[in-house]
Amino acid sequence: MTGKQKKKGQLIVLSGPSGTGKSTVIAELMAQRELFFSVSYTTRGPRVGEQDGVNYNFVTRQEFERMIAADELLEYAEYVDNYYGTSLKVINEKLDAGIDVLLDIEVKGAAKVRQRCPDAIFIFMIPPSFEELSRRLHGRNTDNEAVITGRLEKARSEYKEIPNYDYLVVNDKVSHAVGEIEAILTAAECRVENRKYIVEGDNAL
Amino acid sequence: MTGKQKKKGQLIVLSGPSGTGKSTVIAELMAQRELFFSVSYTTRGPRVGEQDGVNYNFVTRQEFERMIAADELLEYAEYVDNYYGTSLKVINEKLDAGIDVLLDIEVKGAAKVRQRCPDAIFIFMIPPSFEELSRRLHGRNTDNEAVITGRLEKARSEYKEIPNYDYLVVNDKVSHAVGEIEAILTAAECRVENRKYIVEGDNAL
Repeated sequence: MTGKQKKKGQLIVLSGPSGTGKSTVIAELMAQRELFFSVSYTTRGPRVGEQDGVNYNFVTRQEFERMIAADELLEYAEYVDNYYGTSLKVINEKLDAGIDVLLDIEVKGAAKVRQRCPDAIFIFMIPPSFEELSRRLHGRNTDNEAVITGRLEKARSEYKEIPNYDYLVVNDKVSHAVGEIEAILTAAECRVENRKYIVEGDNAL
Repeated sequence: MTGKQKKKGQLIVLSGPSGTGKSTVIAELMAQRELFFSVSYTTRGPRVGEQDGVNYNFVTRQEFERMIAADELLEYAEYVDNYYGTSLKVINEKLDAGIDVLLDIEVKGAAKVRQRCPDAIFIFMIPPSFEELSRRLHGRNTDNEAVITGRLEKARSEYKEIPNYDYLVVNDKVSHAVGEIEAILTAAECRVENRKYIVEGDNAL
């Protein structure tokens, strides 16, 4: 390539109800293509088994507030006296280096990202059916009936946000969902506005 | 699927300079997925080796003018006293049956399709470089130098239309170009507006 413009990375936002299987799909996707998974920042303390930089980036309240003041966050929210947020600075460094960045984020956070990065790729993932979602949540054996009912109700309200996403992927089978997300990312790379560097390069007029 | 809405086929418009290798890519694409290739209608007579229904649908001037009057054409043009056009009727029948339809059409025809079917997928295909295009045109051994120079000039003017397309695919290798077009079609199927039938079906709220 002799083009002046370099290929830029793409920002991918993935949302979907708890129990849809996002983590498994993300792990498989990352095994198949170069992708930076953006780990959220939080001021809450790590729980048993949680690793700094893997589950969350654990920071002090002082550091988090410095990030807010320095406008280093793409979005953030406060729950139960703790901050949770996404670092725009880290994301931009990766995108500028031509690396795709994946955010696993719930619908409210995604809405904030949409305002700030309208060109990001917004994907909503759902299970094959509501019955299947209920089965999966019961199969986890970690939550009691009230918690599961709450998750299903939350899923229903999250589904209402689907029209605000670009793509809908059904996780009926991990390989199928991964294949569709890969196609979405490849297609985005092929978009004319993302390939200006080609027409300005070897195919310059 | 118990959804009320059925999956509709997608209209795909492929353009690109002569010598880019569109025919080879289309043949490979059709070997890999169900796709209806829309054959143009013309009033000119068949040349040696041309088959009715394969290279063109050969029709009388009277029949072509009936199609114009009946608004059965998506686009048409007249060159050297002969009509050339694309049947909207045939295309719509396929799309309604859920079958994707591919049009191989030059930039002016594509512009007309864009006005009438803005939701179609517009793909522009180019060779890896201008030097390579020149080499390929020379390699054909069918055209003289003046014809080749004319084709290269036409290619330059066609490149100016690239910003009006959705996707840019480089045919550096047939399998690579086919893979990218397949990804574009799969991604289009995943678009939220094309998957309403899913959320109204098994995932109905």
